[in-house]
Amino acid sequence: MDQAEKRELLRKDRQRVWHPFTQMKDYENKDHLLIEKAEGVFLYDADGNRYYDTVSSWWVNVHGHGHPRIKQAIVRQLDETDHIMFSGFTHRPAIELADKLLAIAPPGLGKVFYSDNGSTAVEVALKMSFQYWRHTGRPGKTKFAYLENGYHGDTLGAVSVGGVELFHAAFRPLLFDAYRLPAPQVREWVDGRPTPEAARTCVDEAIEPVRRLFETSAGEIAGLVVEPMIQAAGGMKMHPPEYIQKLRDLCTQYDVHLIADEVAVGFGRTGTMFACEHAGVTPDLLCLSKGLTAGIVPLSATLCTDRIYEAFYDDYETLKTFFHGHSFTGNPPACAVALESLRLFEEDRVLERARETSEALRVQLRRLGSFRHVANVRQLGMVAAFELMADPAAGKPYPFAERRGYKLYWEALKEGLILRPLGDTIYYWLPLVTTPEQAADIVDRTCAVLGRLGYR
Amino acid sequence: MDQAEKRELLRKDRQRVWHPFTQMKDYENKDHLLIEKAEGVFLYDADGNRYYDTVSSWWVNVHGHGHPRIKQAIVRQLDETDHIMFSGFTHRPAIELADKLLAIAPPGLGKVFYSDNGSTAVEVALKMSFQYWRHTGRPGKTKFAYLENGYHGDTLGAVSVGGVELFHAAFRPLLFDAYRLPAPQVREWVDGRPTPEAARTCVDEAIEPVRRLFETSAGEIAGLVVEPMIQAAGGMKMHPPEYIQKLRDLCTQYDVHLIADEVAVGFGRTGTMFACEHAGVTPDLLCLSKGLTAGIVPLSATLCTDRIYEAFYDDYETLKTFFHGHSFTGNPPACAVALESLRLFEEDRVLERARETSEALRVQLRRLGSFRHVANVRQLGMVAAFELMADPAAGKPYPFAERRGYKLYWEALKEGLILRPLGDTIYYWLPLVTTPEQAADIVDRTCAVLGRLGYR
Repeated sequence: MDQAEKRELLRKDRQRVWHPFTQMKDYENKDHLLIEKAEGVFLYDADGNRYYDTVSSWWVNVHGHGHPRIKQAIVRQLDETDHIMFSGFTHRPAIELADKLLAIAPPGLGKVFYSDNGSTAVEVALKMSFQYWRHTGRPGKTKFAYLENGYHGDTLGAVSVGGVELFHAAFRPLLFDAYRLPAPQVREWVDGRPTPEAARTCVDEAIEPVRRLFETSAGEIAGLVVEPMIQAAGGMKMHPPEYIQKLRDLCTQYDVHLIADEVAVGFGRTGTMFACEHAGVTPDLLCLSKGLTAGIVPLSATLCTDRIYEAFYDDYETLKTFFHGHSFTGNPPACAVALESLRLFEEDRVLERARETSEALRVQLRRLGSFRHVANVRQLGMVAAFELMADPAAGKPYPFAERRGYKLYWEALKEGLILRPLGDTIYYWLPLVTTPEQAADIVDRTCAVLGRLGYR
Repeated sequence: MDQAEKRELLRKDRQRVWHPFTQMKDYENKDHLLIEKAEGVFLYDADGNRYYDTVSSWWVNVHGHGHPRIKQAIVRQLDETDHIMFSGFTHRPAIELADKLLAIAPPGLGKVFYSDNGSTAVEVALKMSFQYWRHTGRPGKTKFAYLENGYHGDTLGAVSVGGVELFHAAFRPLLFDAYRLPAPQVREWVDGRPTPEAARTCVDEAIEPVRRLFETSAGEIAGLVVEPMIQAAGGMKMHPPEYIQKLRDLCTQYDVHLIADEVAVGFGRTGTMFACEHAGVTPDLLCLSKGLTAGIVPLSATLCTDRIYEAFYDDYETLKTFFHGHSFTGNPPACAVALESLRLFEEDRVLERARETSEALRVQLRRLGSFRHVANVRQLGMVAAFELMADPAAGKPYPFAERRGYKLYWEALKEGLILRPLGDTIYYWLPLVTTPEQAADIVDRTCAVLGRLGYR
């Protein structure tokens, strides 16, 4: 677009738009990046500059941008039906998607409840779990347990089980009371993985408080919410699969629902279709969104066991209905996109190809080891992360006010990379179609940016 | 589709899908209606039966189904960009839509914050209001006021300000404390409107408790949430515009945010673009969704004053950022659809034409007056409602267990009408493109159904 048009759009953006998770004053003297085109793993700004979408547009994109099959799927669906209500009515795309999701999800899940985004998928899970215990004669089970550093969305129910103080502390008076558990913490990484000793210590330390809590209080706990394998917004903190296995065991033993929030980690990002597969466990409730539609349009789903579903199935007069719904529940175009995405997963062998890239990425990441202030380099599938630290050996971070991550973000844009930081945690969250060559190029550019900022 | 395919889809629906706001046991011996095609104001099931979409697919559809211009808008947008993240980045459709929304919204609103559905639009408003008072030196203002019969969504923050006991009571232990105010209640309707006397009484009775609450407690109240003109899910309860005017006055006088939830009533449904226009007031926060995209894809927006925005605008270190966001915030295809819908509003003179239909509907509705058990026939724009009652003169409803509305719903389907009830409240929520002839046909069929069920 021409410069006048660009300036006019950016003027209106500044005048009219409040961007999410953004201190707008950060943009007092600079503009948001105006994106004009998106193709494959690249975004292009209004001046034609190209950027690797290194964060998959907030962890959503799967098959790259502008995939022709995705577009065709929307068009085909719109020729049949656009949106129709999902209460009293049903339609092919929502039925086929539910069937498909249950076929690929961890075994033992039985029903699909649709909504629009990750927050609502989690709220649905919380409300289902809460009501389940009322309907099955244990109305004292009204509380939830969650992890430090956990993030499950921004609606107030989801915030109540959120463990990221920066995002959540301000809203305390509006939140329900919940049990906060320490997050699993891996202290030593080699080649992007926890050392065996660090993995054992991590699991032992983190699981013991869960056991103690359940011993004393399981009678009042409905469910435990967890992001399996990676606590994403809380700082891309990864844990060993044994932690999820032991959570599953404790939840089963103490009659607590295991609620797996795979909104971020689902759909291949960690190397398996769902992150729970690393641990070989099935949660009682599974929350999905983001990659569900390949990251193109809003849609989410909460999968639950038939046992939970059946606790709501009764004569109308018993008032056991799950009174929850959103207007666009089961939106047909969104369901059609999700179905097409799952077809692409199979036909294009997306998981296998992503595995090749993630192995190539593992090798490349070794190069970050040469930077003295780069710590905790870790990787799972298409996700990798590290911290910028003043003194890694002493565990000493940089002062908060220096905003190291933020500065690196701006520098990386000049290098054609979107390295959106979480504080001083820098991460990749790559589209699954990223090639090994592109992954190498991304690490190359990251090293160049680090060097330019004086990191050695 | 053929019968085998239909049966197979319905079998999977039963086996795999949990429908919203539905007691699934109601479908033990019957199927959800399988919709195969949607065109204009009609839905078609798998057997080719045609139904008036009398409820606009849960109050969302505006220009009819399958509008070619809407489809073209999605396709055009997907040729440019599909979804890109909206934090740090921006794009033409979201900017232009924000600009357009603020141009047509009640004067005095300054910024647009996007999210995905009505619930999140309300949660954003609640959180903005709550944080505003903390940032401006009045951290004691942490509570909200809401109305009996009010409905603002199903996430737990929205449920906390919900006043429909049937939906909300079960979740009490998970909700924050809020002040419940009596709903405005019109006791006499003539020709679909409150009589002048009934209007005066309604406003006086409902506003006095607000005044009393604010006198004693405004110091701890952040905002008051209201659905202007029609409390929709709470039973299509309509009130005079003077009520909203007086709420505005009291909110201004006592420094309480007026939060207008126009998720359902916005975009022309009540005869004006926004329902607040009937009262000539501007809220501090305005929540929009449903009709925003003409009812085709999920999108919502929370509009706020610049005064609210500015209370968050500060150096990053002050931690005044509004830490809220959803992955699909500002989804480009959805914004493109919303923009195209607003163009159609202008080019096709949608509001003027809907006004003709709503006047024709007013005349037709007089015919319902001849049914002895039909009470409180009321109308505003494209919305009309009435109650089935055992004895209207004595204010006596039918017994709950008789499920009169529910039975009428099933009978109406045979007549090609979707009359989804709220208890024994029957309503129309017509697409704006419904013609006067279609409105007459809809009332015809309604009378036929009532007659067949033995109502006289």
